[in-house]
Formats: sequence, structure tokens, C-alpha cells
Amino acid sequence: MRKILILGAGRSAASLITYLVEKAGEQDWRVTVADRSPEQARKLVGAAGDAADVVALDASDAGARGALVASHDLVISMLPAAMHMDVVHDCLQHRKHVLTPSYVPKEMWALDAQAKEAGLVFLNELGLDPGIDHLSAMRILDRLRAEGASLEAFESYTGGLVAPESDDNPWGYKFSWNPRNVVLAGQGGAACFIRDGRYRYIPYHRLFTRVQHIEVPGYGAFDGYANRDSLKYRKVYGLEDIPTLIRGTLRRQGFCAAWNVFVQLGCTDDSYAMEVPADMTWSSFFDAFLPPAPDGDLRASLSGYLGLDPTGQVMDQLDWLGVFGNEPVGLTAGSPAQLLQHLLEQKWALGAGDKDMIVMQHVFRYARGAERRRLSSSLVVEGRDRTDTAMARTVGLPLAIAARLVLNGQVAERGVLLPLSSGLYDPILDELEELGIAFREQEEVLPD
Amino acid sequence: MRKILILGAGRSAASLITYLVEKAGEQDWRVTVADRSPEQARKLVGAAGDAADVVALDASDAGARGALVASHDLVISMLPAAMHMDVVHDCLQHRKHVLTPSYVPKEMWALDAQAKEAGLVFLNELGLDPGIDHLSAMRILDRLRAEGASLEAFESYTGGLVAPESDDNPWGYKFSWNPRNVVLAGQGGAACFIRDGRYRYIPYHRLFTRVQHIEVPGYGAFDGYANRDSLKYRKVYGLEDIPTLIRGTLRRQGFCAAWNVFVQLGCTDDSYAMEVPADMTWSSFFDAFLPPAPDGDLRASLSGYLGLDPTGQVMDQLDWLGVFGNEPVGLTAGSPAQLLQHLLEQKWALGAGDKDMIVMQHVFRYARGAERRRLSSSLVVEGRDRTDTAMARTVGLPLAIAARLVLNGQVAERGVLLPLSSGLYDPILDELEELGIAFREQEEVLPD
Repeated sequence: MRKILILGAGRSAASLITYLVEKAGEQDWRVTVADRSPEQARKLVGAAGDAADVVALDASDAGARGALVASHDLVISMLPAAMHMDVVHDCLQHRKHVLTPSYVPKEMWALDAQAKEAGLVFLNELGLDPGIDHLSAMRILDRLRAEGASLEAFESYTGGLVAPESDDNPWGYKFSWNPRNVVLAGQGGAACFIRDGRYRYIPYHRLFTRVQHIEVPGYGAFDGYANRDSLKYRKVYGLEDIPTLIRGTLRRQGFCAAWNVFVQLGCTDDSYAMEVPADMTWSSFFDAFLPPAPDGDLRASLSGYLGLDPTGQVMDQLDWLGVFGNEPVGLTAGSPAQLLQHLLEQKWALGAGDKDMIVMQHVFRYARGAERRRLSSSLVVEGRDRTDTAMARTVGLPLAIAARLVLNGQVAERGVLLPLSSGLYDPILDELEELGIAFREQEEVLPD
Repeated sequence: MRKILILGAGRSAASLITYLVEKAGEQDWRVTVADRSPEQARKLVGAAGDAADVVALDASDAGARGALVASHDLVISMLPAAMHMDVVHDCLQHRKHVLTPSYVPKEMWALDAQAKEAGLVFLNELGLDPGIDHLSAMRILDRLRAEGASLEAFESYTGGLVAPESDDNPWGYKFSWNPRNVVLAGQGGAACFIRDGRYRYIPYHRLFTRVQHIEVPGYGAFDGYANRDSLKYRKVYGLEDIPTLIRGTLRRQGFCAAWNVFVQLGCTDDSYAMEVPADMTWSSFFDAFLPPAPDGDLRASLSGYLGLDPTGQVMDQLDWLGVFGNEPVGLTAGSPAQLLQHLLEQKWALGAGDKDMIVMQHVFRYARGAERRRLSSSLVVEGRDRTDTAMARTVGLPLAIAARLVLNGQVAERGVLLPLSSGLYDPILDELEELGIAFREQEEVLPD
């Protein structure tokens, strides 16, 4: 019997746990779920709990964490990304495989030789993004390269959104992921990418005005805004000479124009504490970022300041959020970003019956012989309910499948790994397809 | 005989050294100038060098620095601000007075009690800004308060500029101060201030669009943009309840609208290294921040992107800098800000015959009895030549005068000090006036 340890039972661990617990009998393994809150872990283990143990663990307690790692065969770390290195060191010491959904921190590469020598798999970036993006992009890129294609462009966008049936607000958005990350998205440096052989840089304050129109078959129109660093993927994907490479984030069409209002005002800034008077309302919060208006009409001064159509869609979106209302902010301190997040969490919460949705789209342009083609590959996953969300399924199932492959000796590679090879992307994508997580391709010949 | 040690002989130390050396005989003191480059120090000491010694010193060499401090009576630190604390610790150990032109770092306040006990003066913020701003604002504020005025507003702007006779470019600007600080000005947080009792916040990317029009008698029109934190001056100046308090930086009228182009493009960003192709020209550098233009006309795409008048003043200013030109950038690596600075240093250098200029203006609004008044107090100082600049005079002379006062027992206060009391501002401002550094006041009764 093999023993699997899952560290962290947050929302994104739900589908991972369900998969592993359901397969426990057939696969002859036993699952331990360790979390600071054993109640939360027990909830996720659910009815099928015979095959699983739940353990209370403060993951910063090195002794308890190490002992737990030592008594298992494979560890899946769903802890905050900053804690993965501690877990990886435990796994090296006790000679255990480890899987994470997070970006490889630089320090982990330093352990590559030791992991290889010990015959261990340290497999990372195997959630949704990073994760399914790697698997699906590499499968197509390898195929096109094998066919002799010359790649001209690779553009890839991903978004965590709300399913059409639960999309009932003018933003087309609800939180299915860490709200703080949504409010701070795009900050901390310019977006950089390459288009037609030329490097392009977009500063944060322009990001939501430089939006790409994206169509997903059957799902309509989306806004795509560029992620911070697209250039690093040239090396990762072996696309060093590709003239166009852009990665970005998807929102429903019209989201970015309205979000840009917050960026322009400066109320996504998390770098300083505001003075928050006891009687501050949402309209006075937003007014603090505007030039003083003699008549005190926030609608007029905001639309004038930012050149918005006073009766347009953006003003409707702001209105719906309560930007112009006299509700008290209900906090006594905070950065602008923290106050804005507090408002959004009340308005963009996923309701009890709401379903989330994941959308990913890759577009490749390439030449083969005399012909130039455009290939799009799109994935849409809708959540089943508030626990088995699209986010939890797309983050957790790739890890769950990979755990099975590793434990069954079906992964040949050793060391610090990304899921870039056919040995990983073929079986994982094939099984994801069986689980309803399937890309659809469309291809067209481009006019000369 | 008293011994004065000047640490650092950078450009802003010139007038300080001249003053102290010229007064050496009369005052019976001797001056030591210590710098990494003794040649530079010797140049500043100049012909009147009999009363001065020049010493080579690496100020990070604690042993050499401490020995030098130990053999003097008073130290003036013109070193980079980050090094002042080392000097202050030396001065505490060897029981010496110390003067700096820089903001008091938090750690220095912790030494206040020890300095008081040892009978030492640790006098800071005594250059131009901070420095002359404190002296002049506090003299007027104390006067108005003594007269029973109720303060409604205090707005204060300072700029290091170029004298009208040397102002021969469409920006009205040349570097008389650290170019890097000019390129990065306003970054690192929102500007915050209070106006009419309401807190106001301006994010960096909006700063140069929210400009105050400032008139200085005899010198015409200026742009004023808000400094990062005006609010801290409420406590420093005893203005806790003032409804309006704004501090800012002055540029010639029209500068900010053109500078805003660089901010909007994102080319004042110092947070990442650009890809710099070997053949990069200035036009291709700026083009990298724009959406791709099919026809490749940078002028048209820039004016379209930012809504600029294609034949307006801003385009002339950019043109004059060579923004649209095909000169090679001449660097192989750097952040956007570093590349931009490299261009500006070639274009905005003070020429051999050029003179710089300092402008400072305080505006107070107050009520006394039934009357409301507006009082402005303006200072303009033009440089004499490239060494005895307005910047060197206004930074160095307050320190030099204060050194004399301290050595002659005319400063009663002890401990960590700012120049906020009449015991400092009266004698220093009076002597500055004799040296040609004089404020001019204008007062008017405001209509009901």
C-alpha cells in the first residue's frame, strides 16, 4: 500500500482529494490530508472518508511536518507557494516524491542534482496556470514542430470567471480565486512581450486600456490583458526565435474598461495606509482620488476626469458596485486596495448556487510549406457546485493524475520537473479529457 | 582654535566650504575637507586654502572616519544620506556636534536623549529643501500665530531650475541636481495632502496631469506638482488642524505636460531591465512602449495614443530631445529610466556658462478677526557660476551659518534638532538675506 500526503486543504484541494480518495481502493493507496483546520479537511474528504486520514498540522512546525512527510511515499503540497521549499527540503531528506501546482522558486533548481541522484520526482507547475497551460501548449507545439511547421506566433490567455448561468452582474465577474490577487493583478512591473519581432512594454497603469479582443467558440467575447512576463516562456517552450509571444489573463468583455477606472484613480494601490475618517462612505472613498469638484457631484467629476461616457456601460458597472453610494466603507484602516477589496468581496461573492468557469485559449500562427495557418485551442470548464469548482478541478486533477503516474512508475524523469514532456502531457491530458476537461481546436488557412 | 570637519566635497559642498574657509581667520577656526577624491576637495577649497586641510577619506572606513571625527570640534556631513548614521554614531562616541542637510532617519531619534545628555547638537534638515523651507515657513507661521491668525491653508513649492538667461530649451529645464532623482521624482507611492479638510491622493501616473499653476513675481509662471507626503508637515509645523496643506515641486510652465508623456509610456520605470537590441535608436526605444502602429509613424502613433496635439508644444519638446530621431541609444543594457536618463543627461546638461536657479514659494491663507488674507513669500536665487550654483549656495550656506552659531555658543538647544525655532531661523535667515538669499512677501485681503 502506497501512502499519499496532501498538505493544505484549501478550496483548490477539493477535487484533488476527491479523485485520490475515490481511487484509493482500486489503486491500493491511502491518503492523509493535513491542514491547520481538520474540520475543513474532513469536509473535503467527505463521505468517501474510509480511505483517508485527516491530521491537524501547523505547516510551519518543522518537526511535525517532517515526521508526517517521513511516513508517506508521495507529498502533494497545496500550501501557500512560499512554504513549498520547506516541504521540498523535507522530501529530499526523507527521500519522497513531491508535487506542487506552483512556479518553481529559484532555490529549488539548486536541488535538481540531489533529487535526480536520489531518484526523486519534484514536479511543479502542475495546476491550471501554470499547469494545464504547459501541458496543452507543449502537446501542440511538439506536434507542429514534428510536422515541420515554422512558428510565427503563440498567444495564450487564461481566466477564472463565472459560468454563464451564474453571470448576473454587469461586470461578468465573481471571485472564484484569491480576491487580493485579483485586486493587485498586473502590479509590480511592466507587462513585457514580443510582437512581430519587437519587444513591447506596457506599464501597469496602461494595462487595462491595451486589451486584446478574444472570441471563444460558444462562449462569446472576452477581454485579454497581458501578463507581466511573457518572455520567459520562450526558453521554457523552446520558442527562442518566435516573433510573437504573448500570455495574458481573460475577463468578460467590458470588464477591463471598468477596472481601468480603479487603476486610473489609484485605488488598487496597496503600498500605503489611507486616512479613513469614521464617517467614510464609498462615494467619499472614491472622491479622495479625484480633483476637488466645486459642486461635489462624484458622477460628473469622475466621468469628466477620466473621459467616461456619463451614461455608458462603465458608469453602470461602477453604479452597480455602489461606487456612488453612501454606504459606510465599514473599515477603520487599510490601503486603497484593501478598502476596494472589501467592497468587491461583498459584491462579487459566488452565491450558494453559483458556478464558476475556467477559460483558456491558445492561438498559434505558423507556416508550413507555402501555407500559413492559424490554430486555436480552447478550453472551457464550468464548475459543478461551490466545492467542486472549475478552479478546484483544473488545479487539482492534473496533480492527482500525476500522483498516480508517479506512484505507478509511469514517469521516467527525475529531479526538478515541469510538465513539458510527452511522458507527462499525453497521459494527463488524455485522462483530463475523460474527466470532461477537453480542449477544442479550430484551424484555418490564413490568406496570403 | 576650533576645528570643523566637512565630510564629502560634492558639488553641493562648494559654497559651504567657501564660506567657512573665508571666515576662518576672523572666527579663529580651521577647516578640514575630507573626500574620496582629494583633488575635488582641493578644487573647492581653492585659493583661500591656507585655512583648510584636505584629506583623502573613504567614508565607509570606520577607523579612519572615527579618527578624523575625534580630532575636530564640529562635523558637517555632506555624504550620501544613507551614511549619516555612521557619522552620527562617531560624533556621539567622540562627543562632537554634527550638522546634516538631510531628513532625520528614524534611528537618529533614538539617540536624542544621549545627545542631550552629552550636550551635543545633532542638527539636520538644514539645506534648501529640507532646510530653508523649514526656516522660512516657521518664521512666518510663528508670526501669524502670534498675531492671532487662524491658518486655513499652507501651500509650499520648491524647484531647482535654470536661470532665465540660461533657459534656452523648450523644457525650461537643465540638471542642476542628481539626474536620477529627477527621472524618478514622484515614484514609490501616491502623493497625499489635505485640501479644504479632505484627504486627497494622486497616484504617480496622474501626478503630472494634476498640476497647480504658480506665479512668482518677476519670474512668471510655473507648474507645481505635489510631493509624496505633505501630511507629515502638519505635525512638524504644528498645523494639526489646518484644512489645506500641500507641498510640491516647481518646474517651468509646460514641463509637466511633456514629462507626463514619459510617465504615461512607462519609460521612467526603474524596476526592470529592458531588452536593448544592438541597433536600438531613440525612436525605437520610445516605440517599444506604444501599441504597434501599422504605418510605423512614431509621431502619429504617440500623439494618437496619448491624445496630444500633433503640432503642439509637447510634441516640440519631445522633438527637441530627439525622441523621434534615429540616434543610437548608446547603451547596451538598462532600465527604461536609465535609458531615458542617459538621453536627458546629454540634452539637459548645464553648459559652461549656464547658471542655475532656485525658486521657493510659500502661500498662506488665514483669517484674523473678520478679515481673510493671502500671504505669499517667494525666494529666487540665481547661481553665480557652475561652482557657486544656486543649489550649492542654498544647500550649503544655512549649514555654514549654523556651524558658526553652534561653535560660538549661540544655539541653546541640544539633542536631535530640526531648524524650527526662532533661535535658529532668525539668525540664519537674517544672514542669508545679507548674502542675497532673501524672501519677498506679498499680502492681499481676500474678498468675502
